[in-house]
Amino acid sequence: MSLAPVLAQIDADLDESVERLFNLLRIRSISTDPLYKEDCEEAADWLVNQLALLGSDAKKYATSGHPMVLGDVFPNNSDGKLHILFYGHYDVQPVDPVDLWDRDPFDPAIEATPKGEVIRGRGASDDKGQLMTFIEACRAWKLVHGDFPCRITFFFEGEEESGSPSLVPFMQEHKEKLISDVVLICDTGLFQSETPAIVTRLRGLLGEEVTVTGPDKDLHSGMYGGPALNPIRILSKVLANLHDADGRITVPGFYEGVPDLPVEISDQWEALKFDHQNFLGNVDLSVPAGEQGYTPLEMIWSRPTCEINGIIGGYTGEGFKTVLPSKASAKVSFRLVGDQDPHKIRSSFREYIRSMVPDDCKIEFIAHGASQGSVMSTQAPEFKAARKALSEEWPNEAAFVGCGGSIPIAGHFQKITGVTPMLIGFGKDDDQLHSPNEKYDLESFHKGMRSWARVLAELAD
Amino acid sequence: MSLAPVLAQIDADLDESVERLFNLLRIRSISTDPLYKEDCEEAADWLVNQLALLGSDAKKYATSGHPMVLGDVFPNNSDGKLHILFYGHYDVQPVDPVDLWDRDPFDPAIEATPKGEVIRGRGASDDKGQLMTFIEACRAWKLVHGDFPCRITFFFEGEEESGSPSLVPFMQEHKEKLISDVVLICDTGLFQSETPAIVTRLRGLLGEEVTVTGPDKDLHSGMYGGPALNPIRILSKVLANLHDADGRITVPGFYEGVPDLPVEISDQWEALKFDHQNFLGNVDLSVPAGEQGYTPLEMIWSRPTCEINGIIGGYTGEGFKTVLPSKASAKVSFRLVGDQDPHKIRSSFREYIRSMVPDDCKIEFIAHGASQGSVMSTQAPEFKAARKALSEEWPNEAAFVGCGGSIPIAGHFQKITGVTPMLIGFGKDDDQLHSPNEKYDLESFHKGMRSWARVLAELAD
Repeated sequence: MSLAPVLAQIDADLDESVERLFNLLRIRSISTDPLYKEDCEEAADWLVNQLALLGSDAKKYATSGHPMVLGDVFPNNSDGKLHILFYGHYDVQPVDPVDLWDRDPFDPAIEATPKGEVIRGRGASDDKGQLMTFIEACRAWKLVHGDFPCRITFFFEGEEESGSPSLVPFMQEHKEKLISDVVLICDTGLFQSETPAIVTRLRGLLGEEVTVTGPDKDLHSGMYGGPALNPIRILSKVLANLHDADGRITVPGFYEGVPDLPVEISDQWEALKFDHQNFLGNVDLSVPAGEQGYTPLEMIWSRPTCEINGIIGGYTGEGFKTVLPSKASAKVSFRLVGDQDPHKIRSSFREYIRSMVPDDCKIEFIAHGASQGSVMSTQAPEFKAARKALSEEWPNEAAFVGCGGSIPIAGHFQKITGVTPMLIGFGKDDDQLHSPNEKYDLESFHKGMRSWARVLAELAD
Repeated sequence: MSLAPVLAQIDADLDESVERLFNLLRIRSISTDPLYKEDCEEAADWLVNQLALLGSDAKKYATSGHPMVLGDVFPNNSDGKLHILFYGHYDVQPVDPVDLWDRDPFDPAIEATPKGEVIRGRGASDDKGQLMTFIEACRAWKLVHGDFPCRITFFFEGEEESGSPSLVPFMQEHKEKLISDVVLICDTGLFQSETPAIVTRLRGLLGEEVTVTGPDKDLHSGMYGGPALNPIRILSKVLANLHDADGRITVPGFYEGVPDLPVEISDQWEALKFDHQNFLGNVDLSVPAGEQGYTPLEMIWSRPTCEINGIIGGYTGEGFKTVLPSKASAKVSFRLVGDQDPHKIRSSFREYIRSMVPDDCKIEFIAHGASQGSVMSTQAPEFKAARKALSEEWPNEAAFVGCGGSIPIAGHFQKITGVTPMLIGFGKDDDQLHSPNEKYDLESFHKGMRSWARVLAELAD
């Protein structure tokens, strides 16, 4: 089956494809907020319906949270043909603060910007726009050839933005339906506008919340200021000690399992000529502030971090209050790489914190999830095939890159079905994921569909 | 005029006095929060009305903030009689966190506790209960004798808990009305349950709010964690550096003007046998955490401090969010003593903070008031008279003590009218000032009224 007419069909049908995406973007499928439960159901139904139009038997599966969508399309003759599974998520992040949006987040539109046309709306990039690139590519194959180049399993969840509580139990229960030769996940970005990327390294994530209690009640700093211990001061000291002067994390044993970067990978990354001045300049920063001795790209893709994501204590309203507070707390997270063991690090972190606070303090911890980093082998033939297909669509050759974030679904496939997934996506750094005014470049959407059409052809070849 | 029937009248009228105090406590006069502006007006009106019942010409005076109440009562024959001015404040602290209160903070009640009956409610002690002890003592004099032992000027403000922005301009404008022979201020406590106190040393207060901005928007820690600067981490480091290992404050020049304590004063304080184990034990602490080399009483009464009163940054709600925040801020206050210059310290603090943050950070400061510490001479005859009167009401002799808090009004009187005020009050250490479940012992209220009746008699004698 020839690829060229499929690409032509995608080009011809672009407006209709955008219109279909708009229909999905109008559904307020915010998974973390119970208020939008019905909307999540509606999004799942909408997807089942789209897949039915492709001739799929896909169904909605109830979970204790939001439903899963799962089902297949088969080529006319399946014999010896490849079996691909595609994963995406139909849920989106909350939209607050709504007043920072320039338009209703659920009333999508094409907007002209100095950098080109964009699709504006919550989920335009993360992940509705991305998952639709794949569905539209399949639609074009079906329209042009009345057939698919391989068997395709579609797997969509609706809880990715709220911790995916139902995902692992569902995958374990339906493991047989999820086994395939190749797994494709579309929830990542291009390396740069003209350089597509296949993610082969992901960082894990460990979350901790620590609360320091000093006096058992809030005190007046005029009455107790001096002899009474101040938990904000203690917590500040503890947090200030988590990094040394070189930006290295001081938690004992933290760097156990952090692999050195192979020279061939660092050479490849060097060749990407990552413009960190621009990357930081976009957010009004100029100096890479991380671990000394590493390039900014290495800091994000191959080095672990420790971040303070939130802190609160004492009086934080308008004006002033001379309170000497009883409690102070912070949310701390670690991005992990290679074989770092999140559970060992959690224990070590807690012991370390305890060792730094005076006996007069009480310390409490809350665990907020733990996942390991992962590294995929780029030697497998499907990685080479996908790289070739992407390189043909885009101006520059596709890169094997890292990702500073955590995409736990990748690890779940590795553990449950034994398949190492390929992470390919078309988002850009300025897509405003999770923020007001999220967008997806029309070019990302268009070339994304074309990329998948090519990847299907190349993999099935 | 005889004192005994005045004391008997106070005893007989106790329930009615409490009821009147409840009426004042029900008014939500939180001065720092603009939401309660009308309530502050109402509290001022209520006081004008109470003073009118004593035959006073007192009026409400508008300011750019909350109103002042000012006016006199005169003895039937003023010739050669003493002129006393009494100061108190009708505004109260905010009540958050409200869920830590055992009752509505503005629905006062008498509660039985293991240590005796208490008046529970915001402002019960600070300062509505205290100022009412004086008004009730005046009421008793008037009822019993149809006369007052001296001329009395009442002066109440409504911004004491929010830095008193209108106070000095008002005092300067109305200086003539504020000149008196003696100034009484009721906003302090007993030394211990059975030992009344006259405060002769006060700490000043300097408030600063510092905001550190890193990236110009909140970032995803998966995308930027590593090279992007984290303002919470910067702020923690800055705050952790404000004290050295001995608990001394590191702001350059901070200790300029801090006087050594005269031996006779430290001897007197030593003799008070302050039970710091109990003082700290009451709030679930055990080790004096302040500046090394000083007794806990010295830490509170004669040494300056630096406290972090509040901190906030990033995500502080339920659960977890891997945000790398744009901003973090803290409210920091200094208790000052002797001749420490708050304005010089403010400048030095800001310069010091700026020197500690990377160039990529923006720093903003908000000034939250500045007052100097003060030391009064205890040799004046009114100090001796008041000490004698208090010693007759309470089991133990009255003590000349220090106060760790700031009562800037004391310094204002010294500067504007040239009168050194006497600070006498009946609060207790466990009154939970500025905290949830504030209370005032019924005994404090009752013996407080009796104490003022005696002080008026003794001063006028």
